[in-house]
Amino acid sequence: MKVDGKHIRSIWLEPDGVTVGAIDQRRLPHEFVVARLATCADAAEAIRSMLVRGAPLIGATAAYGMALAMREDGSDAALDRAYATLIATRPTAINLKWALDAMHAVLRPLAPAERVAAAYARAGAIAEDDIAINQGIAHNGLALIEMIKACKKPGERVNVLTHCNAGWLATVDWGTATAPIYLAHDNGIDLHVWVDETRPRNQGASLTAWELGHHGVPHTVIPDNTGGHLMQHGMVDLCIVGTDRVTADGDVCNKIGTYLKALAARDNGVPFYVALPSPTIDFTIRDGILEIPIEQREASEVTHMTGRTDDGRIETVRVVPAGSPVANYGFDVTPSRLVTGLITERGVLKAERGALAAAFPERVVRRQDALRA
Amino acid sequence: MKVDGKHIRSIWLEPDGVTVGAIDQRRLPHEFVVARLATCADAAEAIRSMLVRGAPLIGATAAYGMALAMREDGSDAALDRAYATLIATRPTAINLKWALDAMHAVLRPLAPAERVAAAYARAGAIAEDDIAINQGIAHNGLALIEMIKACKKPGERVNVLTHCNAGWLATVDWGTATAPIYLAHDNGIDLHVWVDETRPRNQGASLTAWELGHHGVPHTVIPDNTGGHLMQHGMVDLCIVGTDRVTADGDVCNKIGTYLKALAARDNGVPFYVALPSPTIDFTIRDGILEIPIEQREASEVTHMTGRTDDGRIETVRVVPAGSPVANYGFDVTPSRLVTGLITERGVLKAERGALAAAFPERVVRRQDALRA
Repeated sequence: MKVDGKHIRSIWLEPDGVTVGAIDQRRLPHEFVVARLATCADAAEAIRSMLVRGAPLIGATAAYGMALAMREDGSDAALDRAYATLIATRPTAINLKWALDAMHAVLRPLAPAERVAAAYARAGAIAEDDIAINQGIAHNGLALIEMIKACKKPGERVNVLTHCNAGWLATVDWGTATAPIYLAHDNGIDLHVWVDETRPRNQGASLTAWELGHHGVPHTVIPDNTGGHLMQHGMVDLCIVGTDRVTADGDVCNKIGTYLKALAARDNGVPFYVALPSPTIDFTIRDGILEIPIEQREASEVTHMTGRTDDGRIETVRVVPAGSPVANYGFDVTPSRLVTGLITERGVLKAERGALAAAFPERVVRRQDALRA
Repeated sequence: MKVDGKHIRSIWLEPDGVTVGAIDQRRLPHEFVVARLATCADAAEAIRSMLVRGAPLIGATAAYGMALAMREDGSDAALDRAYATLIATRPTAINLKWALDAMHAVLRPLAPAERVAAAYARAGAIAEDDIAINQGIAHNGLALIEMIKACKKPGERVNVLTHCNAGWLATVDWGTATAPIYLAHDNGIDLHVWVDETRPRNQGASLTAWELGHHGVPHTVIPDNTGGHLMQHGMVDLCIVGTDRVTADGDVCNKIGTYLKALAARDNGVPFYVALPSPTIDFTIRDGILEIPIEQREASEVTHMTGRTDDGRIETVRVVPAGSPVANYGFDVTPSRLVTGLITERGVLKAERGALAAAFPERVVRRQDALRA
């Protein structure tokens, strides 16, 4: 998508054909800084520190991390070490494991000397596939937005609410939740996005608003507390969020607070959609609340906030009294019963086992296989 | 309640018998600063700027504002002017109108020369009554906490979730939502409070956490997004929140985001209680969503945050990209169907017309009278 009028992706192979460029998302929206990842350790640290974030982008970064590792050392031991290093960076997003497994499946059978080239090729393909998948999501989600537009009076805009950043910054390009939004906007549909601030890391205010602003999509930033009120007053036509992991039964793990918006949507008859690339589906588990580990992150993300002062300095300030403990759960699980549909690259699916299995038969695992694995 | 081990109220008459002292709540939790209100304009500005906030404290401040006005000029015109100035400061809290009407009813029949003394007396009584009411709420809410404690295994603490600040800082003393919490704690019940940060003004992180910390009540600050996840995992035994206005039918207007917690409580079988002094009940309206005006506040409350840097400076930083519009609704309405009970000074009531009318028969107004007024 566009930044200052120029097209850019969130991650790319540098012209040297070796190192990897990525937008340092920790600096947004205040500074646009590009980081260069030169080693597997760089890639792991980029994921861990959330220089890159978003489930699909984490997957692509991990894939490039494997390629960088093979460049340093193509041995079996190095392959296993890179896998172990990268898988330990973040616990919740399933795409990380999916991408690492895909890389491992390609690299393991090869001779060490052949692994570097194969790794860069596979990592590049994972990045390209992500874009193709997101374009599929865009087209399938566009149909929903067009349907809502058709029910509106002339001159009325379509109001979409989103939470966190499932935008192009969370993927390689286009985004998941934002893909239908960008396509609808580019097609001339008058739409407006309510952007949840998304405490504690403020990915909505920092990243989604920044993305939408640069691409010219009308939007309004709101505190996370606001969505219920807007829905009560008919100011939201549909919700579209992303996800870090969807279970075989359609439970949706996403940024903490998503569940509260799904409850409000249900209470007010607002459709609640989740946009996802199929690698985000984890066919090995069913009950999201019981089975998905929820990452707990540092207290400082809640106690401190970083921003720009009026005179241009970047400052970090404490907003919670010193001495008050803090809890910082990164994600929550929205039960499938609250999800109107899952927007995937293969269509808009019901959030239930049968629909997911029918759309992705090659991904289905028998429960016993999963437990054995 | 206690600050640095000493008992203090949120507002008081200074020893000069004329001016009014109040804690400047905009400076908390970073600085403890006392403001002195010497004129009606000072009182109005204190309410408008949220130097004081919280429905009962707004009422008490407005009452003292009327007394300060009478000291400047005891005429009928001055009385009307003071009423008009003070009523215009904040649109949502009904206690403001209640306190001003109470002052007006006492002052209007008196000769101008008699009004100053009567106004200070009535304002003082409003403050004392607020404390007595909150102690009633404390005792009635304590019974609920004791019931939950009785169902716990030995050694298990009672977990209460609260939103915003309905603490002693929002009243003259004790608070509303916090009154049962303080009493339970003082009685030796092992309880712990989940404190919603409460964006955008962060009254939970800034005020409730500060209050609870100074009084020694165990607590944890959480982003507003977190409560649903905690309830899904059995980590919340009950919710207690305050309110700015309750309708005759039991709809509850409170800080934006309250409705989302009530939905999560309902979805997880967690009792959701609202603590309120009876002046907060507005018997003239029934449907909170349709009839309560929701204040929209400045964008800067969302776009900027103020806190303390590690080296001790107070700084304000922008956290939303420049150019991204912002919406800032101050309150939302929780429909009575989501409210387990209303903790009042006259008992814990069902959130419905009959129960409210039976408990406060002297306050009930006929619908036609209300519409005529």
